[in-house]
Parts: sequence; C-alpha cells; structure tokens
Amino acid sequence: MADRNRKFLLAKRPEGRPDRDTFDLVEEDVPEPGPGEALVRTLYLSVDPYMRGRMDARESYADPWGVGEPLQAGVVGEVVESNGAGFEPGDLVAGNLEWADYATARGAELQPVNPDHGPISTALGVLGMPGRTAYFGTREVAEVRAGDTFVVSGAAGAVGSVAGQIAKLTGARVVGFAGSDEKVAFLEDDLGFDAGINYKETDDYRAALDEAAPDGVDAYFDNVGGPITDAVFSRLNVDARVAVCGQISQYNAEELPTGPRKLGTLIEKRARVEGFLVNDFQPRFAEASKQLGRWVAAGDVDYRETVTEGLENAPDAFLGLFDGENVGKQLVKVGEREA
Amino acid sequence: MADRNRKFLLAKRPEGRPDRDTFDLVEEDVPEPGPGEALVRTLYLSVDPYMRGRMDARESYADPWGVGEPLQAGVVGEVVESNGAGFEPGDLVAGNLEWADYATARGAELQPVNPDHGPISTALGVLGMPGRTAYFGTREVAEVRAGDTFVVSGAAGAVGSVAGQIAKLTGARVVGFAGSDEKVAFLEDDLGFDAGINYKETDDYRAALDEAAPDGVDAYFDNVGGPITDAVFSRLNVDARVAVCGQISQYNAEELPTGPRKLGTLIEKRARVEGFLVNDFQPRFAEASKQLGRWVAAGDVDYRETVTEGLENAPDAFLGLFDGENVGKQLVKVGEREA
Repeated sequence: MADRNRKFLLAKRPEGRPDRDTFDLVEEDVPEPGPGEALVRTLYLSVDPYMRGRMDARESYADPWGVGEPLQAGVVGEVVESNGAGFEPGDLVAGNLEWADYATARGAELQPVNPDHGPISTALGVLGMPGRTAYFGTREVAEVRAGDTFVVSGAAGAVGSVAGQIAKLTGARVVGFAGSDEKVAFLEDDLGFDAGINYKETDDYRAALDEAAPDGVDAYFDNVGGPITDAVFSRLNVDARVAVCGQISQYNAEELPTGPRKLGTLIEKRARVEGFLVNDFQPRFAEASKQLGRWVAAGDVDYRETVTEGLENAPDAFLGLFDGENVGKQLVKVGEREA
Repeated sequence: MADRNRKFLLAKRPEGRPDRDTFDLVEEDVPEPGPGEALVRTLYLSVDPYMRGRMDARESYADPWGVGEPLQAGVVGEVVESNGAGFEPGDLVAGNLEWADYATARGAELQPVNPDHGPISTALGVLGMPGRTAYFGTREVAEVRAGDTFVVSGAAGAVGSVAGQIAKLTGARVVGFAGSDEKVAFLEDDLGFDAGINYKETDDYRAALDEAAPDGVDAYFDNVGGPITDAVFSRLNVDARVAVCGQISQYNAEELPTGPRKLGTLIEKRARVEGFLVNDFQPRFAEASKQLGRWVAAGDVDYRETVTEGLENAPDAFLGLFDGENVGKQLVKVGEREA
C-alpha cells in the first residue's frame, strides 16, 4: 500500500461551465480508519452530471460541496483495512466516497459488491444508480406501456441507454436523441432502438421526430432539457407522460435559461410532467437491482462503459459529460484490483 | 315569441387580443326545430376563457370556430317548441348552443335544469362546467390534502373561487391570486381563503408568496400561467402537484410566449405538473354535481356571478374576462324567464 493519498477538492465555485481550475488535486497521508470505519482503495470512480449542481452554493436535493472540501463520487473499491467496519481486507465494496485514491467510510455506508454478478464497474452503471434511475423513471414515472412511442434524450448515456432498452422490453417503439452518428449506430444496431436522432446534425428536431415517431410521443424520458425537450413537448400525444430525470443542457447556464412556455400544451394533451430522484425509490432498490441483473445476464439489456484512466484525469472525464464524449457510463479507473 | 333572432358569428380570426370587430351580430328568422329537435330561447349565456382558443385556426381539443359561422356557448334556456325532442314547452334546459336569442338543438344535446336546485344560472357556474372543473382539478389532479398549502391563480373567477373553497373544505391552507383589492376581500372575507394576493399591486410575487404561504406550496391550481405561475413554481415543496387548468394570461399572445425553464425545479422537488380537461371526467359528472349541490345548499361553497345584460353585450362580457372584470362566474343575461 502506498503511504500517500491523492484527492480532489473543490478549488472554487464555477461560473457557468467548470474547467480544470474548478478542481484542486492535493496530496496527503493515507487516512487511518476510525472505529467502525474501513479504509477503501478506489478502483473505479463514477462521474455524473448531477455533480454540477453540487458545485453551486445553492441548496438543492444534494448538499453543496464546500470550497476547499473534497468532492464525492460513487466508488467501487477494495477494503484495505477494517477497524470494526464489518468488512475484511480484500472485500469489494461500493459507496459514496471521495475523488481520491483512498478514503475511509463507516461500514454502514458501504455495500458489498459481488464480482460473480458481472464486472465490478457495473455497480456504478447498469447495476447501480444509473440503471436504477432508468428502471424507476421508465416504469414508474413515464409509465411506459406496450404500443407506446417512447422517446429518450441523452439516449446513449448511462441512464438513457438503459431506459430505452427497458421501454423496448415493455413493447414500446423507442426513439433516442444522441450527439453523434456513432452513438446513433450504437442505439440502433447494438441496443435495438427503433430510431436514433443525431441532434448535432439537425436543428429541426420536430421534423426529425415526425419521421422517427410518426404517431407522436406517449412517454418521454428527459435527461437533457432545452430545445430537444421543447420539440418533444410539441409532439406529445393525449395522456402523455414525461419523466424529468436530468437537464444537462442547462446545468452550466450562467443566466436563468428561458424557453417557450409549454403549460398550454399540457392542457391540450392532458399530459403529465413529473420530476424524480432515484433515491426516493430507495425502498425498492433491491427489486430494481435483481431485475436489472437478470436482464443483463440474459442479454436483454446491454451496456457500454467509457473508461478514463487515472484519478488525475477525473476532472476531464467529468467535463466531457457536458460535451457528450462518453458512450454509456463514464467511469474513471483509479486502481487495479489486487490479484 | 319574437319572429326575429339575433346571433353572433365569428367575423374574423383575431390577431392577438380580440375586439368588437371579432364579432358580427346578424339577424335572421327564428329557426324552426327539425325532427327530434327543440327550439330553445336563451336566458343565460356563459362566456369562458377557453373560447379564445376556438377563435384561432389551429386544431386543439375543441374544434376551431369557422369564420362567418356562429359562436357557441353554454346556455340555460327555456324550451319554446319541441319537435319530438323529449321536452315540453316551458322546460328549462342547459346545453352548448349558440350566442343567440334562439337556437335549435337535438334533445340528446340538452340537459334538464331543475330550478329547485338553486338559481338556474348556477347550471353554467358553480353547479356546471366551472364547478366541475374546480372539483376534479382540485381533488383528482392537484390531489389536495389536509395540511397542504394550496395556491390558486385566477382565484376570484368561476373556477378558482370554487377550487379554493374545495381545498379549504379538505383542510388546506388556501392562498389565491386575484386582480383587485375588492377580489382579495371577496376571497378572504366571503370565501374563507387564508390569504389573497392582489397581483396588480406588486411585481414581486415571490415575496408575496413568502408572506402568504410561508411553508411553501404543496398544490397549485393554475388558471392563468405566466409570471404568477413562475413564482409559484419557485416555491413548490417536495412532492408538489400542479393542476394546469387554464393559461388566460397567454391566450392573446401574438408571439410564442417564453419564460424561465422550470423542469430542473421539478426534479429538485419531485413535483408533478398535469394538464386536464373537465370533459375527460364526464363519467363522473353526476358525482360532482351532487357533491357541489350539497355544498352549495349547506353554505359550504359560496359563489358569485357577474351578469352582463343583453345578448348584444356578450362580446364585452367575453373580452372583460381578459381584464379580470368579472368576480365569480361571468354570465350574459339574454332573456327573462316566462312567468
């Protein structure tokens, strides 16, 4: 075990788009686990769009990170030392830890990761928070049904790619917005989407939707917001359901974003728009994990990971989310598993 | 019976705000009821904000009115002549008829009005479409519960005034936006609202809400849209429900109205926004009418009517809706009941 630990602090609050100066990489001694704590060595670290909100001072559903304080992330790691935490050295665990080589956590904050269930990185993706977000958002919020036309934005991302596949398994026609021809091919050829729309190739999202979703939109899973979402709203069918999961296109806005007012459309279509957070479904996480695990094992749900090597590159991995550089789940590989 | 009939046609499609030139008053012979039809003499005619949408060419939930064609409205009238329509001369009926002194209708298009249940005009207000809209919107869409803070815009109008009282009967704290001190006094003193906000006296709706709804907003019944609604959205609590009933502040817009994007708020608050049309609740109209009738008879739900005299003044009554000239239900009194 190394005796030095690297970790990222929030250097300052970004105005608009964050950049490398938002992050401060510091070195310290590897921390000692206190009573009831384990020391975990990071193997994979997850970067997620919602983290942008934690960089602002504004109170929201997740507490703001303090300036000069460590950043947090979903981590899969290996227990190095346990001080009565209920784990053994060598155990694989997942938890919300720090952007660091090593971090300590109380035993109750760690979940065991079973490597027999698939690559351990999937605990941060298809079998973890993003997969569960897709599961509950598609089924419980968008309430997708057989015969529906289901549209998902950010379709090639960690959440959208799973949401579209679940909708497909439910018997819906599935259309996804993504940001490159490579991603559209991934949706159509690998994931079985009925159609993908490369939103960087056209400004006329309505026309693209008219072609890809000629019967209108019954259910919409929104990860991005902005003009794509405006276009989908203009194509909602009567009794449509919209699950609002993310608004990544708006997160770096420096001024309050404006757009067309759409509440009149909701009356005309008797449509429902509902925001959700996966953590509100916590009592049902076991159900979701079990079902997602079955689908993945059976090959019914496929997944992709984009892995950036090295803790020092975690900021670039995070910043790349806003340019759509990832296909599927964006991970940072921080350490190798001990043999 | 007169032998001449006056009726209003749509003279032309308005651009932006309608005016008197939107309407064309013509005279013709009183029509003859065909087989299965009744001839109805109009006593009260209802003007409603949703009619603005029917003046545009765009297809929506209600068909556009044709240029040069008669306008339609909810009417309470007296059967003058029945040609096998299942009614007798002198019967009181309600139906969707024309802006006219007389109109014909098939028997199935008419509902009997029982004058023992209250003033016959209430069939167009608290016991009719507006009352039912308030009933279903408050209970089924906004899902108001005891202990909630419930906010309604257009609170002194036909729908809003009833919605607020139903919320109050449910045990909510009720706050209403209205456009004059007289209306605010009506809400607070006559209807038992906890607070009214005169939106013409302040631009800072957020501050006004912070005072009137210090615990935030759990349920919102929106009749107006625009900046009032923006402010309410900024004060939604976790798990808030928004029932979108009308957007009267937007109906005369000549360009696509824009405003702050609010979907991010819906995520943070896990809030639901749902548009609705009362006609989708048609199978339950009897339930609503019965309950509303009980409440009115018991004095639990109060109502107010603003009555404009004379068919010729119906356009002014309609146009006045957009200036908030009415308190409670806006009616046009067209004829006197036969003694």
